[in-house]
Amino acid sequence: MNDAAFGPVPAVRAEGAAPVFERAAFVGIGLINGSLARDARRLGLARRLVGSARRRETLDQALALGLVDEATPDAAEAVRGADLVVLGVPVGACGEAARAMAPGLRPDAIVTDVGSVKARVLDLVSPHLDMRRFVPGHPVAGAETSGPVAAVEHLFRDRWCILTPRADADAAAVERVAALWRAVGSKVELMDAAQHDKVLAAVSHLPHLLAFNAVNTAGEVEHAMRGEVLKYAAGGFRDFTRIAGADPAMWRDVFLHNKAAVLEMTGRYAENLAALQRAIRRGEADALYERFASARAIRRGEAARPGGAPAPGTP
Amino acid sequence: MNDAAFGPVPAVRAEGAAPVFERAAFVGIGLINGSLARDARRLGLARRLVGSARRRETLDQALALGLVDEATPDAAEAVRGADLVVLGVPVGACGEAARAMAPGLRPDAIVTDVGSVKARVLDLVSPHLDMRRFVPGHPVAGAETSGPVAAVEHLFRDRWCILTPRADADAAAVERVAALWRAVGSKVELMDAAQHDKVLAAVSHLPHLLAFNAVNTAGEVEHAMRGEVLKYAAGGFRDFTRIAGADPAMWRDVFLHNKAAVLEMTGRYAENLAALQRAIRRGEADALYERFASARAIRRGEAARPGGAPAPGTP
Repeated sequence: MNDAAFGPVPAVRAEGAAPVFERAAFVGIGLINGSLARDARRLGLARRLVGSARRRETLDQALALGLVDEATPDAAEAVRGADLVVLGVPVGACGEAARAMAPGLRPDAIVTDVGSVKARVLDLVSPHLDMRRFVPGHPVAGAETSGPVAAVEHLFRDRWCILTPRADADAAAVERVAALWRAVGSKVELMDAAQHDKVLAAVSHLPHLLAFNAVNTAGEVEHAMRGEVLKYAAGGFRDFTRIAGADPAMWRDVFLHNKAAVLEMTGRYAENLAALQRAIRRGEADALYERFASARAIRRGEAARPGGAPAPGTP
Repeated sequence: MNDAAFGPVPAVRAEGAAPVFERAAFVGIGLINGSLARDARRLGLARRLVGSARRRETLDQALALGLVDEATPDAAEAVRGADLVVLGVPVGACGEAARAMAPGLRPDAIVTDVGSVKARVLDLVSPHLDMRRFVPGHPVAGAETSGPVAAVEHLFRDRWCILTPRADADAAAVERVAALWRAVGSKVELMDAAQHDKVLAAVSHLPHLLAFNAVNTAGEVEHAMRGEVLKYAAGGFRDFTRIAGADPAMWRDVFLHNKAAVLEMTGRYAENLAALQRAIRRGEADALYERFASARAIRRGEAARPGGAPAPGTP
C-alpha cells in the first residue's frame, strides 16, 4: 500500500435506487451476514444467495433457516460467479478467508466486509484482492446473540453503516455497496479507516472492554459476599452484563486488531479513573460533583441527537 | 453504637396485609420519595401525606403535582403527628435532616430512609433518632431523572428493597416498613448494613463510576476526532451515557459515604483492567478470549434466573 491510497475518501450519493445483484455470496454466516442475507432476500436485492462457512453445522443451519439457497465449506466455490461477496468472519480471519476465496472470484466482483475494525482488514485482505473493488464496511448494529440462528430481519434499520474505502477504490463499487446498505435501512457514511478505528475504540471497543471487566470483577467477589452480588444486579450493572454477553472470539479479534487505538483510549480511561479514585479517597466533594455533572452534560448533548444511538450489543 | 447492634438482622414475614399509616411525612421530595408518595396515595397506604423540602420550588411542585396534601420547609413541622417518616435526601444530608425533624417526632413514629448507602446513614442519624424505630431502607430502583416532576407510579414494582435494621430494631417497626415496600410491589430483603454497602458497591456504585468516567473520557477526545465520536455512540456507549445522566449530587454523596467499599471494588477493577491492557499490548489472544468467555458465562448465570433475579424469600 502507498500513502496515496489513504487520501480523501470518495463522495457517495445520499440517495439512489436499490441495487440488484445476480448472485450474492456470504463468506461466514453469523449474526451480521445472516441478517443481511435475510434482508437481501426479503427486499429482492439478490437473485441467488450463497453461503460459505467452515463448520458443517453452520451451513446446515443457514440452509434450514432459508438464509441462503446454496451452502458450501469451499469459499472459492461459494464466490464463483458472484457479483457481490460479503466477508463476515472475525477480523483476524479476514486475510485467510480472502486468500481462500480469491481463486473463485470474478474479476469484476465487488467485495465488501462487515468487520468492526477497518485498517487491519484492509491490510489483511490487500495481498489477495483487487483493492479497487474492495469496499470495507462496518454496520454499527448487533445483538448479544451470534450464529445463523441469531439472524433477524431489520437489524440494520436506522443504524449507521460506515464505509472506509481507499482513495483508489472504484467509485461505482463504493456506490453500489452504499446503495445496498441504504436499501436495508442504514444511514451510510464514508470515513478514513484509521479515523473509524479511533472513533469506534472510544464509543464501542472501550465500553465493551469495561463491561467485560466489570462483570468479571463482580464475579470475583461473588463468593466472598455469600452469592449476594449478582442477585442484586442493579441499574448500571444490568446494562454491563448485557454487553458482556457478546461473542468472545469476535471481541478478542477486535482488541487484537485495533490495538493502538484501544490502548490509547484505555490509557486515557485508566488515568481518569485513577483521578476519581484519588478524589474519593481524599473526600474531594466538589471535584466529584464536577466530573459527574460534566458526564451528565455530555449525555444530554448526545441524548438530544435525532435517533439517539444504536442498540446494546452493537459492536 | 455498640457491636451488639450489628448482630443477625431480625426475620421478616414474606407476606402480610398492606399497612395503613395515619400520616406519612416525606422529608425530601425527589424521584424516590415522590414516587413512593404517589404509590402510597394510589394504594391508600396513608390517610394524609405531608412533604418537606428546603427549596420553595420543590414544595410548590409537590403540591401542584398532588404528591402531598401539605408541604412545609420546616422538617419538625412536617413530621409532627406522623406515624411514618421517610427520609429521602442525599446520604450526606441525612444527619442534618434527622436533627432538624427530631423535635417534631412522635415517640412511636417509625422512621425509614431510601439512601443508597446504609452504614453511614445509621451513623449520621443515630445521635438524633430512637434507633429502635429507625428502619434503614434502600429501594434498588431509579431513573435518569430527578426531582418531584420525575416521580412516577409503579417505580418500585418488581424491584428489590433492602432493609438494614440494627439487631436492636423493633420487630414490629421492621415488619411495617417491609409491608409498605411489599405493598408497592417490591421484593423485600433484610441485610446487614455493611454487607449491603459492599454488595451495592459492586453492582451499582462501581458501574456508575465507570459510566461517568467513560462518558467523560469520550467527551475528552470528541474535539480531537472532529466531533465524530458521540455521533456514533454505539451499543455499549449508549448504556453508559444513560447511566451517566443520573443526579451528580446524589452520586457524589454515595462515593463519599461508601468510600471504603467503593475504593476496594475500584481497586480490584483497576488491577483487572491493567491485566487486560497488558494482554492486548502483548497480543495474548487466549487470555483475552478466556476473560471475555468468563464474563459471558457470569452473565448467562445471571440472565438465566427467572425474571433476572430470584423471587422474594429465596435464600
